[in-house]
Amino acid sequence: MTETITRNGVDIATLFATLDAVKAAPDAARFTFRASNQWVSGTHSRGTIHGFFGVGEERHHAEAFRFDADHPAVLVGNDNGPTPVEFVLHALAACLTAGLANIAAARGIRLTEVTSTVTGEINLNGILGLDPNVRNGYENVVVEFAVKGDAPPEKLRALVEQSRARSAVFDILTNPVPVTIVVDTD
Amino acid sequence: MTETITRNGVDIATLFATLDAVKAAPDAARFTFRASNQWVSGTHSRGTIHGFFGVGEERHHAEAFRFDADHPAVLVGNDNGPTPVEFVLHALAACLTAGLANIAAARGIRLTEVTSTVTGEINLNGILGLDPNVRNGYENVVVEFAVKGDAPPEKLRALVEQSRARSAVFDILTNPVPVTIVVDTD
Repeated sequence: MTETITRNGVDIATLFATLDAVKAAPDAARFTFRASNQWVSGTHSRGTIHGFFGVGEERHHAEAFRFDADHPAVLVGNDNGPTPVEFVLHALAACLTAGLANIAAARGIRLTEVTSTVTGEINLNGILGLDPNVRNGYENVVVEFAVKGDAPPEKLRALVEQSRARSAVFDILTNPVPVTIVVDTD
Repeated sequence: MTETITRNGVDIATLFATLDAVKAAPDAARFTFRASNQWVSGTHSRGTIHGFFGVGEERHHAEAFRFDADHPAVLVGNDNGPTPVEFVLHALAACLTAGLANIAAARGIRLTEVTSTVTGEINLNGILGLDPNVRNGYENVVVEFAVKGDAPPEKLRALVEQSRARSAVFDILTNPVPVTIVVDTD
Protein backbone atom coordinates (compact mmCIF):
# COMPACT_ATOMS: atom_id res chain seq x y z
CA MET A 1 0.00 0.00 0.00
CA THR A 2 1.26 3.43 -0.92
CA GLU A 3 -0.01 6.41 0.98
CA THR A 4 0.62 10.07 0.22
CA ILE A 5 0.94 12.04 3.42
CA THR A 6 0.37 15.73 3.00
CA ARG A 7 0.51 18.36 5.68
CA ASN A 8 -0.41 21.97 4.86
CA GLY A 9 -0.80 20.75 1.29
CA VAL A 10 2.88 19.76 1.24
CA ASP A 11 3.70 16.22 0.11
CA ILE A 12 6.11 15.39 2.95
CA ALA A 13 7.66 12.34 1.32
CA THR A 14 8.40 14.27 -1.88
CA LEU A 15 9.82 17.17 0.14
CA PHE A 16 12.30 14.93 1.96
CA ALA A 17 13.03 12.87 -1.17
CA THR A 18 13.89 16.11 -2.98
CA LEU A 19 16.25 17.12 -0.18
CA ASP A 20 17.93 13.69 -0.33
CA ALA A 21 18.22 13.87 -4.12
CA VAL A 22 19.92 17.27 -3.93
CA LYS A 23 22.26 16.07 -1.18
CA ALA A 24 23.32 13.25 -3.50
CA ALA A 25 23.63 15.49 -6.58
CA PRO A 26 24.12 19.14 -5.50
CA ASP A 27 24.29 20.44 -9.08
CA ALA A 28 20.63 19.51 -9.54
CA ALA A 29 19.88 22.58 -7.42
CA ARG A 30 21.41 25.01 -9.92
CA PHE A 31 18.45 26.82 -11.43
CA THR A 32 18.17 29.62 -13.93
CA PHE A 33 14.88 31.51 -13.92
CA ARG A 34 13.78 33.88 -16.67
CA ALA A 35 11.23 36.57 -17.39
CA SER A 36 10.80 38.18 -20.77
CA ASN A 37 9.17 41.54 -21.29
CA GLN A 38 7.66 43.47 -24.17
CA TRP A 39 7.04 47.18 -24.02
CA VAL A 40 3.45 48.10 -24.92
CA SER A 41 3.19 51.90 -24.59
CA GLY A 42 4.31 54.52 -22.09
CA THR A 43 4.99 52.84 -18.74
CA HIS A 44 2.93 49.79 -19.74
CA SER A 45 4.75 46.55 -20.48
CA ARG A 46 3.84 42.89 -20.48
CA GLY A 47 6.00 40.19 -18.95
CA THR A 48 5.99 36.47 -19.68
CA ILE A 49 7.27 33.77 -17.35
CA HIS A 50 7.43 30.30 -18.85
CA GLY A 51 10.73 28.46 -19.30
CA PHE A 52 13.40 27.80 -16.70
CA PHE A 53 16.43 25.57 -16.26
CA GLY A 54 16.72 23.22 -13.31
CA VAL A 55 17.63 19.68 -12.23
CA GLY A 56 19.94 19.47 -15.22
CA GLU A 57 17.58 20.39 -18.03
CA GLU A 58 15.42 23.05 -19.64
CA ARG A 59 11.86 22.97 -18.29
CA HIS A 60 8.77 25.10 -18.40
CA HIS A 61 5.77 25.95 -16.29
CA ALA A 62 2.45 24.28 -17.14
CA GLU A 63 1.44 27.53 -18.81
CA ALA A 64 3.07 30.78 -19.91
CA PHE A 65 2.17 33.22 -17.14
CA ARG A 66 1.69 36.80 -18.38
CA PHE A 67 1.57 39.94 -16.26
CA ASP A 68 1.01 43.54 -17.22
CA ALA A 69 2.87 46.25 -15.35
CA ASP A 70 2.18 49.96 -15.52
CA HIS A 71 2.10 53.15 -13.47
CA PRO A 72 -1.15 54.57 -12.08
CA ALA A 73 -2.42 57.88 -13.50
CA VAL A 74 -0.89 59.82 -10.62
CA LEU A 75 2.50 58.53 -11.85
CA VAL A 76 1.81 59.36 -15.50
CA GLY A 77 0.66 55.88 -16.49
CA ASN A 78 -2.60 54.19 -17.46
CA ASP A 79 -2.92 51.73 -14.57
CA ASN A 80 -2.96 48.61 -16.74
CA GLY A 81 -1.22 46.67 -13.97
CA PRO A 82 0.67 47.10 -10.71
CA THR A 83 3.87 49.13 -10.62
CA PRO A 84 7.09 47.12 -10.83
CA VAL A 85 7.92 47.88 -7.19
CA GLU A 86 4.59 46.41 -6.08
CA PHE A 87 5.48 43.12 -7.79
CA VAL A 88 8.58 43.05 -5.57
CA LEU A 89 6.42 43.25 -2.43
CA HIS A 90 4.19 40.47 -3.78
CA ALA A 91 7.28 38.33 -4.42
CA LEU A 92 8.51 38.82 -0.86
CA ALA A 93 5.17 37.84 0.70
CA ALA A 94 4.84 34.79 -1.54
CA CYS A 95 8.39 33.62 -0.83
CA LEU A 96 8.10 33.89 2.94
CA THR A 97 4.68 32.21 2.87
CA ALA A 98 5.81 29.24 0.74
CA GLY A 99 8.77 28.70 3.05
CA LEU A 100 6.53 28.90 6.10
CA ALA A 101 4.24 26.16 4.79
CA ASN A 102 7.16 23.88 3.91
CA ILE A 103 8.92 24.39 7.23
CA ALA A 104 5.69 23.87 9.20
CA ALA A 105 5.05 20.64 7.29
CA ALA A 106 8.58 19.41 8.03
CA ARG A 107 8.13 20.27 11.74
CA GLY A 108 4.75 18.57 12.01
CA ILE A 109 2.80 21.81 12.52
CA ARG A 110 -0.57 22.12 10.82
CA LEU A 111 -1.29 25.68 9.68
CA THR A 112 -4.86 26.91 9.48
CA GLU A 113 -4.35 30.47 8.23
CA VAL A 114 -1.45 32.55 6.98
CA THR A 115 -1.98 36.09 5.75
CA SER A 116 0.47 38.92 5.32
CA THR A 117 0.71 42.50 4.21
CA VAL A 118 3.95 43.93 2.91
CA THR A 119 4.41 47.69 2.79
CA GLY A 120 7.27 49.54 1.17
CA GLU A 121 8.07 53.21 1.63
CA ILE A 122 9.61 54.94 -1.33
CA ASN A 123 10.41 58.59 -1.93
CA LEU A 124 10.03 59.20 -5.64
CA ASN A 125 12.29 62.24 -5.50
CA GLY A 126 14.96 59.57 -6.04
CA ILE A 127 13.79 58.14 -9.36
CA LEU A 128 12.62 61.57 -10.51
CA GLY A 129 16.20 62.78 -10.09
CA LEU A 130 15.09 65.68 -7.88
CA ASP A 131 17.10 64.85 -4.76
CA PRO A 132 20.54 63.21 -5.00
CA ASN A 133 20.32 62.19 -1.33
CA VAL A 134 17.25 60.00 -1.88
CA ARG A 135 17.70 56.44 -3.09
CA ASN A 136 15.71 55.12 -6.05
CA GLY A 137 14.27 52.07 -4.30
CA TYR A 138 12.44 51.32 -1.08
CA GLU A 139 13.77 53.07 1.99
CA ASN A 140 12.01 50.63 4.23
CA VAL A 141 9.92 47.46 3.89
CA VAL A 142 7.73 45.94 6.62
CA VAL A 143 6.10 42.50 6.48
CA GLU A 144 3.19 41.89 8.85
CA PHE A 145 2.28 38.23 9.21
CA ALA A 146 -0.77 36.70 10.85
CA VAL A 147 -0.17 32.99 11.43
CA LYS A 148 -2.55 30.45 12.94
CA GLY A 149 -1.95 26.75 13.47
CA ASP A 150 -1.88 23.89 15.96
CA ALA A 151 1.26 25.04 17.78
CA PRO A 152 1.98 27.59 20.52
CA PRO A 153 2.78 31.18 19.50
CA GLU A 154 6.54 30.77 19.98
CA LYS A 155 6.63 27.81 17.58
CA LEU A 156 4.58 29.71 14.99
CA ARG A 157 6.97 32.68 15.32
CA ALA A 158 9.92 30.32 14.91
CA LEU A 159 8.45 29.16 11.58
CA VAL A 160 8.48 32.72 10.28
CA GLU A 161 12.02 33.22 11.55
CA GLN A 162 13.24 30.07 9.80
CA SER A 163 11.43 31.04 6.60
CA ARG A 164 13.13 34.44 6.72
CA ALA A 165 16.50 32.77 7.25
CA ARG A 166 15.98 30.65 4.10
CA SER A 167 14.07 33.06 1.87
CA ALA A 168 15.46 33.78 -1.58
CA VAL A 169 13.52 37.03 -2.02
CA PHE A 170 14.37 38.28 1.49
CA ASP A 171 18.04 37.76 0.62
CA ILE A 172 17.64 39.47 -2.77
CA LEU A 173 16.18 42.56 -1.07
CA THR A 174 18.44 42.77 1.96
CA ASN A 175 21.74 41.91 0.28
CA PRO A 176 23.27 43.12 -2.98
CA VAL A 177 22.68 41.06 -6.13
CA PRO A 178 25.04 41.64 -9.07
CA VAL A 179 22.98 42.79 -12.06
CA THR A 180 24.44 43.18 -15.56
CA ILE A 181 22.60 44.93 -18.39
CA VAL A 182 23.43 44.34 -22.04
CA VAL A 183 21.82 46.23 -24.90
CA ASP A 184 21.29 45.21 -28.51
CA THR A 185 20.28 48.04 -30.86
CA ASP A 186 20.46 46.16 -34.18
CA MET B 1 -6.91 74.97 -28.30
CA THR B 2 -5.56 72.25 -26.09
CA GLU B 3 -3.46 69.54 -27.60
CA THR B 4 -2.18 66.42 -25.93
CA ILE B 5 1.27 65.56 -27.20
CA THR B 6 2.27 61.98 -26.57
CA ARG B 7 5.51 60.33 -27.51
CA ASN B 8 6.00 56.61 -26.90
CA GLY B 9 2.55 56.71 -25.33
CA VAL B 10 3.86 59.13 -22.70
CA ASP B 11 1.86 62.33 -22.18
CA ILE B 12 4.82 64.71 -22.23
CA ALA B 13 3.01 67.71 -20.74
CA THR B 14 1.75 65.61 -17.82
CA LEU B 15 5.22 64.14 -17.31
CA PHE B 16 6.83 67.57 -17.01
CA ALA B 17 3.90 68.99 -15.01
CA THR B 18 4.32 66.13 -12.54
CA LEU B 19 8.03 66.88 -12.21
CA ASP B 20 7.24 70.56 -11.59
CA ALA B 21 4.56 69.69 -9.04
CA VAL B 22 6.98 67.49 -7.09
CA LYS B 23 9.68 70.16 -7.25
CA ALA B 24 7.20 72.57 -5.64
CA ALA B 25 5.98 70.05 -3.05
CA PRO B 26 8.59 67.31 -2.52
CA ASP B 27 6.51 65.44 0.06
CA ALA B 28 4.00 64.57 -2.67
CA ALA B 29 6.59 62.04 -3.85
CA ARG B 30 6.45 60.02 -0.63
CA PHE B 31 4.64 56.83 -1.60
CA THR B 32 3.79 53.70 0.33
CA PHE B 33 3.04 50.64 -1.77
CA ARG B 34 1.41 47.49 -0.42
CA ALA B 35 0.81 43.89 -1.36
CA SER B 36 -1.30 41.54 0.72
CA ASN B 37 -1.04 37.78 0.54
CA GLN B 38 -3.12 34.80 1.52
CA TRP B 39 -1.72 31.31 1.81
CA VAL B 40 -3.73 28.78 -0.20
CA SER B 41 -1.98 25.40 0.25
CA GLY B 42 1.58 24.12 0.18
CA THR B 43 3.74 26.64 -1.69
CA HIS B 44 0.69 28.20 -3.35
CA SER B 45 -0.37 31.67 -2.24
CA ARG B 46 -2.39 34.49 -3.74
CA GLY B 47 -1.33 38.12 -3.61
CA THR B 48 -3.50 41.20 -4.01
CA ILE B 49 -2.26 44.64 -5.03
CA HIS B 50 -4.83 47.40 -4.78
CA GLY B 51 -4.38 50.34 -2.39
CA PHE B 52 -1.39 52.64 -2.05
CA PHE B 53 -0.55 55.99 -0.51
CA GLY B 54 0.83 58.83 -2.59
CA VAL B 55 0.58 62.54 -3.32
CA GLY B 56 -0.71 63.06 0.20
CA GLU B 57 -3.58 60.61 0.30
CA GLU B 58 -4.71 57.01 0.20
CA ARG B 59 -5.42 55.86 -3.35
CA HIS B 60 -6.08 52.62 -5.18
CA HIS B 61 -5.52 51.06 -8.55
CA ALA B 62 -8.48 50.91 -10.96
CA GLU B 63 -8.83 47.26 -10.00
CA ALA B 64 -7.51 44.87 -7.37
CA PHE B 65 -4.78 42.97 -9.19
CA ARG B 66 -4.43 39.36 -8.00
CA PHE B 67 -1.51 37.02 -8.69
CA ASP B 68 -0.96 33.41 -7.73
CA ALA B 69 2.53 32.26 -6.83
CA ASP B 70 3.65 28.67 -6.43
CA HIS B 71 6.55 26.31 -7.03
CA PRO B 72 6.65 23.97 -10.03
CA ALA B 73 6.38 20.22 -9.41
CA VAL B 74 10.16 19.81 -9.56
CA LEU B 75 10.29 22.12 -6.51
CA VAL B 76 7.52 20.29 -4.64
CA GLY B 77 4.71 22.62 -5.71
CA ASN B 78 1.68 22.49 -7.99
CA ASP B 79 2.68 25.15 -10.52
CA ASN B 80 -0.33 27.39 -9.94
CA GLY B 81 1.81 30.44 -10.70
CA PRO B 82 5.39 31.59 -11.12
CA THR B 83 7.85 31.21 -8.28
CA PRO B 84 8.37 34.32 -6.13
CA VAL B 85 11.88 34.81 -7.53
CA GLU B 86 10.51 34.92 -11.08
CA PHE B 87 8.21 37.79 -10.09
CA VAL B 88 11.36 39.69 -9.07
CA LEU B 89 12.81 39.29 -12.59
CA HIS B 90 9.52 40.46 -14.09
CA ALA B 91 9.59 43.52 -11.82
CA LEU B 92 13.12 44.40 -12.90
CA ALA B 93 12.30 44.17 -16.62
CA ALA B 94 9.11 46.21 -16.20
CA CYS B 95 10.86 48.92 -14.17
CA LEU B 96 13.72 49.40 -16.61
CA THR B 97 11.31 49.38 -19.55
CA ALA B 98 8.95 51.98 -18.07
CA GLY B 99 11.90 54.25 -17.31
CA LEU B 100 13.25 53.79 -20.82
CA ALA B 101 9.96 54.91 -22.39
CA ASN B 102 9.72 57.97 -20.14
CA ILE B 103 13.33 59.02 -20.68
CA ALA B 104 13.06 58.51 -24.44
CA ALA B 105 9.91 60.65 -24.48
CA ALA B 106 11.64 63.40 -22.52
CA ARG B 107 14.64 63.28 -24.89
CA GLY B 108 12.50 63.35 -28.03
CA ILE B 109 13.36 59.84 -29.12
CA ARG B 110 10.57 57.72 -30.59
CA LEU B 111 10.87 54.04 -29.68
CA THR B 112 9.54 51.39 -32.01
CA GLU B 113 10.35 48.23 -30.08
CA VAL B 114 11.67 47.36 -26.64
CA THR B 115 11.99 43.77 -25.53
CA SER B 116 14.05 42.24 -22.78
CA THR B 117 14.86 38.97 -21.12
CA VAL B 118 16.02 38.83 -17.54
CA THR B 119 17.76 35.69 -16.28
CA GLY B 120 18.69 34.94 -12.71
CA GLU B 121 21.00 32.18 -11.55
CA ILE B 122 20.20 30.67 -8.19
CA ASN B 123 21.71 27.69 -6.40
CA LEU B 124 18.94 26.16 -4.32
CA ASN B 125 21.44 24.50 -2.01
CA GLY B 126 21.16 27.85 -0.23
CA ILE B 127 17.44 27.88 0.56
CA LEU B 128 17.47 24.12 1.13
CA GLY B 129 20.03 24.68 3.88
CA LEU B 130 22.42 22.16 2.34
CA ASP B 131 25.43 24.45 1.80
CA PRO B 132 26.19 27.31 4.22
CA ASN B 133 28.45 28.92 1.61
CA VAL B 134 25.63 29.40 -0.89
CA ARG B 135 23.38 32.44 -0.60
CA ASN B 136 19.60 32.08 -0.64
CA GLY B 137 18.94 34.51 -3.47
CA TYR B 138 20.21 35.10 -6.98
CA GLU B 139 23.95 34.82 -7.43
CA ASN B 140 23.77 36.71 -10.68
CA VAL B 141 21.15 38.50 -12.78
CA VAL B 142 21.54 39.49 -16.44
CA VAL B 143 19.18 41.79 -18.36
CA GLU B 144 19.32 41.60 -22.16
CA PHE B 145 17.61 44.50 -23.88
CA ALA B 146 16.73 44.88 -27.56
CA VAL B 147 15.87 48.51 -28.27
CA LYS B 148 14.81 50.05 -31.57
CA GLY B 149 13.91 53.67 -32.24
CA ASP B 150 14.63 56.77 -34.32
CA ALA B 151 18.03 57.49 -32.75
CA PRO B 152 21.56 56.18 -33.30
CA PRO B 153 22.71 53.16 -31.27
CA GLU B 154 24.69 55.24 -28.77
CA LYS B 155 21.64 57.32 -27.90
CA LEU B 156 19.48 54.22 -27.49
CA ARG B 157 22.14 52.73 -25.21
CA ALA B 158 22.22 55.96 -23.23
CA LEU B 159 18.48 55.62 -22.59
CA VAL B 160 19.02 52.22 -21.00
CA GLU B 161 21.90 53.57 -18.95
CA GLN B 162 19.80 56.47 -17.65
CA SER B 163 16.90 54.13 -16.90
CA ARG B 164 19.26 51.90 -14.91
CA ALA B 165 20.56 54.93 -13.01
CA ARG B 166 16.99 55.87 -11.99
CA SER B 167 15.42 52.44 -11.58
CA ALA B 168 13.74 51.64 -8.27
CA VAL B 169 13.87 47.87 -8.76
CA PHE B 170 17.49 47.92 -9.96
CA ASP B 171 18.37 49.75 -6.73
CA ILE B 172 16.31 47.33 -4.62
CA LEU B 173 18.24 44.39 -6.07
CA THR B 174 21.73 45.83 -6.13
CA ASN B 175 21.67 47.63 -2.78
CA PRO B 176 20.40 46.50 0.62
CA VAL B 177 16.83 47.38 1.62
CA PRO B 178 15.96 47.22 5.33
CA VAL B 179 13.17 44.65 5.80
CA THR B 180 11.36 44.18 9.12
CA ILE B 181 9.07 41.23 9.80
CA VAL B 182 6.42 41.27 12.53
CA VAL B 183 4.27 38.28 13.45
CA ASP B 184 0.81 38.14 14.99
CA THR B 185 -0.25 34.70 16.27
CA ASP B 186 -3.53 35.69 17.99
